[in-house]
Amino acid sequence: MQPIDFWFSIGSTYTYLSVMRLPEVVRLTGQPFRWRPFDVRRVMLEQNNIPFRDKPVKLAYMWRDLDRRAAARGLAPSIPAPYPLANLTFANEVALLGMREGWGEAYVTETYRRWFERGEAAGDTANLSGALLAIGQDPERVRRAASRSEIAQALATETDTARDLGVFGSPSFVVAGEVVWGDDRLEDALDWARVGAIRHLAGEAH
Amino acid sequence: MQPIDFWFSIGSTYTYLSVMRLPEVVRLTGQPFRWRPFDVRRVMLEQNNIPFRDKPVKLAYMWRDLDRRAAARGLAPSIPAPYPLANLTFANEVALLGMREGWGEAYVTETYRRWFERGEAAGDTANLSGALLAIGQDPERVRRAASRSEIAQALATETDTARDLGVFGSPSFVVAGEVVWGDDRLEDALDWARVGAIRHLAGEAH
Repeated sequence: MQPIDFWFSIGSTYTYLSVMRLPEVVRLTGQPFRWRPFDVRRVMLEQNNIPFRDKPVKLAYMWRDLDRRAAARGLAPSIPAPYPLANLTFANEVALLGMREGWGEAYVTETYRRWFERGEAAGDTANLSGALLAIGQDPERVRRAASRSEIAQALATETDTARDLGVFGSPSFVVAGEVVWGDDRLEDALDWARVGAIRHLAGEAH
Repeated sequence: MQPIDFWFSIGSTYTYLSVMRLPEVVRLTGQPFRWRPFDVRRVMLEQNNIPFRDKPVKLAYMWRDLDRRAAARGLAPSIPAPYPLANLTFANEVALLGMREGWGEAYVTETYRRWFERGEAAGDTANLSGALLAIGQDPERVRRAASRSEIAQALATETDTARDLGVFGSPSFVVAGEVVWGDDRLEDALDWARVGAIRHLAGEAH
């Protein structure tokens, strides 16, 4: 089965929903995903795409929508979580290092859990150290390794790749050249990976 | 069953998907909807919420996403449709008049069909006259009746009501004080009308 590229940035709120359900999606479907951290903030600033800043009504709606859908999935986040994140770039650099070393998915999941369920901002010391310890990684070693300029460059290169594919938001799922954006489009991506078209809407609750 | 308020503006692209499926949703669920045209453009400008202007990547994605989902519902729009609309205010004034007189849903459906499937911009003379004739209304009479200042005032009042409810985009569905935004949230609204929570995500295609 061709993999789906899961492009994401720690710092995106709706990405919480995808991070929390991807393992179960994989278990139920067998669909492989490649987790690819990138810097969505840079792409959004380049494209003048600022969805929430100075838009309190839309921001309040985002939290309410996310909270309702999290509850529907059995999650119990503490809403609103700290937002926006001060140290999201480093959080994503750690994620990129973790993907190389094999503990990236565990770290991203744990850092989102602490961000949304304990109110610890991802990328900050408390979250970072706690998440790394929880998954059996040495925070000091990881902090040094993720601070290398080569990691920053690799994240920038991945960000260029995402942008060149047409990715402009997180989470995005890319398969066979098709970009779908949003946790609410994950099922579209699953269908696209299988048959190159969207099928599941015919089974909606209407 | 408590009705769901379907707040919409002709001029919104994703509203095409909802307009085209609402009759079938009603048939299958028995859920009543109140169709309430408003001027989403004014609310968006007031809130500095400009999703597509000067954002070509996001605009191109919107059309692709809409086209894929339309196909999944058996629709065959000609994408991109003319956008943005020059005469959307009048299109919505006609819709408001039509809701009062009982032919509003038929007009909105027909005007969207012509806009998306024939490339006739909604609100322009060809679309307006063609849609009204197709549903058995006299275009000249409607044009005069919808041009009264009282209709413009009524649309402004409805727009204030929508904004005060927290509506900031089209389509939005409001039930029991809950606002959900987007055709992709219609199932959330159906669940909320029934049980005050979202249930259908448990049945997703994953």
